Amino acid sequence: MPQDRHDDPFEWIDEQSERRRRAGLVRTLTPRPADSPLLDLAGNDYLGLARHPEVTAAAGAAAARWGAGSTGSRLVTGHTELHAALEAELAAFCGFEAALVFSSGYAANLAAVAALSGRDALVLSDAGNHASLIDGCRLSRAEVAVVPHADPEAVRKALETASRTETTSRRVLVVTDSVFSVDGDAAPLPGLAAACRAHGAALVVDDAHGFGVLGDGGRGAPYAAGLAGAPDVVVTVTLSKALGSQGGAVLGPARVIEHLVNSARTFIFDTGLNPAAVGAAQASLRLLRREPERAERARAVATALYERLTAAGLSAVRPDASVVSVRAPSPERAVRWAADCRAAGLAVGCFRPPSVPDGISRLRLTARADLTDQQIEEAADAVVRTAPTA
Amino acid sequence: MPQDRHDDPFEWIDEQSERRRRAGLVRTLTPRPADSPLLDLAGNDYLGLARHPEVTAAAGAAAARWGAGSTGSRLVTGHTELHAALEAELAAFCGFEAALVFSSGYAANLAAVAALSGRDALVLSDAGNHASLIDGCRLSRAEVAVVPHADPEAVRKALETASRTETTSRRVLVVTDSVFSVDGDAAPLPGLAAACRAHGAALVVDDAHGFGVLGDGGRGAPYAAGLAGAPDVVVTVTLSKALGSQGGAVLGPARVIEHLVNSARTFIFDTGLNPAAVGAAQASLRLLRREPERAERARAVATALYERLTAAGLSAVRPDASVVSVRAPSPERAVRWAADCRAAGLAVGCFRPPSVPDGISRLRLTARADLTDQQIEEAADAVVRTAPTA
Ligand SMILES: Cc1ncc(COP(=O)(O)O)c(C=O)c1O
Ligand SMILES: Cc1ncc(COP(=O)(O)O)c(C=O)c1O
Repeated sequence: MPQDRHDDPFEWIDEQSERRRRAGLVRTLTPRPADSPLLDLAGNDYLGLARHPEVTAAAGAAAARWGAGSTGSRLVTGHTELHAALEAELAAFCGFEAALVFSSGYAANLAAVAALSGRDALVLSDAGNHASLIDGCRLSRAEVAVVPHADPEAVRKALETASRTETTSRRVLVVTDSVFSVDGDAAPLPGLAAACRAHGAALVVDDAHGFGVLGDGGRGAPYAAGLAGAPDVVVTVTLSKALGSQGGAVLGPARVIEHLVNSARTFIFDTGLNPAAVGAAQASLRLLRREPERAERARAVATALYERLTAAGLSAVRPDASVVSVRAPSPERAVRWAADCRAAGLAVGCFRPPSVPDGISRLRLTARADLTDQQIEEAADAVVRTAPTA
Repeated sequence: MPQDRHDDPFEWIDEQSERRRRAGLVRTLTPRPADSPLLDLAGNDYLGLARHPEVTAAAGAAAARWGAGSTGSRLVTGHTELHAALEAELAAFCGFEAALVFSSGYAANLAAVAALSGRDALVLSDAGNHASLIDGCRLSRAEVAVVPHADPEAVRKALETASRTETTSRRVLVVTDSVFSVDGDAAPLPGLAAACRAHGAALVVDDAHGFGVLGDGGRGAPYAAGLAGAPDVVVTVTLSKALGSQGGAVLGPARVIEHLVNSARTFIFDTGLNPAAVGAAQASLRLLRREPERAERARAVATALYERLTAAGLSAVRPDASVVSVRAPSPERAVRWAADCRAAGLAVGCFRPPSVPDGISRLRLTARADLTDQQIEEAADAVVRTAPTA
């Protein structure tokens, strides 16, 4: 065996690890117990359904009836009548012709972006897009242009330039989160859709943080923008946030869904979503249809949190959905702030490089429909009380 | 609005759809009922655990105790003590220092390949590798060289060439399935590991179809090859096949796992696996430890099937694990054959372009540990009886 540095193929990992340690950017995994005493403003369980007895019972019932796993690709054995039922209900609820369920929202995004573009395509991707959309762009092998955040004029100009310089027809896809995961701000969907239409481009909207929260009864941001069922709009949702389960789905025209069944690699070559997750998502969706006020309440809780925090002098982004983002002065102080909140009984998210597109660290609070006014007060108090002094 | 072909951004989908139809390659989704009368030789439930009452009960119990979803990234709220326990049990069982659970085997493969290579790396990828490994290569942005199938000599030569032409140190990763998903043949792991060691390369093994089936009590192909716990070997497994649940895991040295926690995009930016799937996988693993003969039986069933089919004159690949691949003369006749099996009461997989690397269509039969000798007879009879005549 050679005696050079090659003896250890992972030596570079130690170097990277050391660099992270020096920069104060080490991430560690802290498991939570089932009965945490913390008030949770960190998870994405926007409607408070993940532990709803109807939802967890549906998970158990689905596992008992359909098995713990789906046992194969949806094209082989992994497609049950339960999957088909959820897809029909999702499509109907959000106002689209058809839906296709994936094992995660991440997989749904990889599929939608990669299978609807391709090597000769142009993809215009918002600068604040989620990692899964970015990975979809990379997998697509398309020409990818990152466009300024939430800026329909920039998209319009990029589309104009593209149509001027193209002689032959070319697939063009505009890709955006509906609600950006870090800051909780909304994308200007009507403006983006108009720009796309004027230039024959398709619009892909990741409604991970809008679905269940925005639009009439939680039908989502595209629904609220009048884009539900549009022939040139494709929407992805996740079942892991507002529906409190796991999985993702693509919603769109039937021919788009048929195309994904035939060509999306994360659909064809992945095991179907486990029945417990399908059953839980279906139960949550039915609950939301029965109790549409949950969507509105999630938004109201976010607004109340935002108002309390900014009234106390903190710098936060006005929430367009359920995510409230509060600026921190540095990564170290963000980590410290989150730890102090935790010591005060409150779990909050802490986003810092490299998970933030702009290098700005922040606390990320998520509003839940099932928080009481009292809990909102307590939460805001704890965040304000532990805030780093300037 | 312009009146050119741009009015419809998805027109190209209809063209592709028409081409698929003409080539006889349209895929459609057929949902299965909960109580299908078919004998299932199509799913990947190798140990017959997906519907085991202990396993489905564990799924339900986990949902009741931990919630229907994990509610966030594992780095935020998505990491429960249940996830941590499964990781410890997986690592101990397979003989590795540490394990990290992902929402799917697909996501685990994207993580392992992308996060362990990178833009300046060289990845040598077996020509028969699974789509998720290939997508991992694409996401890595590394230089990717496809090496001939199951050929340690070819890998050794490629590594020699690379070390000769490299002046500076460079990450080199050799990536292979342990058991190839289409033909069920095994990778020559000892030879690959020796080649890697001689050149300071790391070996990534996707044990999706070996875990639970190969090695002492189902500890997997790397364990069988004496590679468990090796400092330069990283293994991925899926929880969706032998364990009958959903999810995936990466197994390896603790520093590799720590590196993934800090840098793997499909870990950091994805919601944690839903508790029901975690609980089911844990119950299956415990069952397998208690009943290690299940692994052996799965292999014996595969061999019995293979022997019956080849004795009847069919062309099949000698199974190294639980997958038995039978050649079909054409895509159309493969589809017809699978349909005839189904009419005879038998569900089998049908693989055809573009899901097969070599363009050869085949039936894919999966052995299950819980098949009776009588069912093996019936299954083989049905496949032989419906075989296309040459
Ligand atoms: C905007 C956005 N899209 C997609 C995803 C991925 O969805 P999932 O976690 O269900 O895979 C997430 C978060 O995880 C997200 O925040
Ligand atoms: C070899 C191989 N690797 C990875 C996967 C992906 O695993 P999962 O379906 O659990 O996402 C599969 C099949 O689905 C596979 O056959």
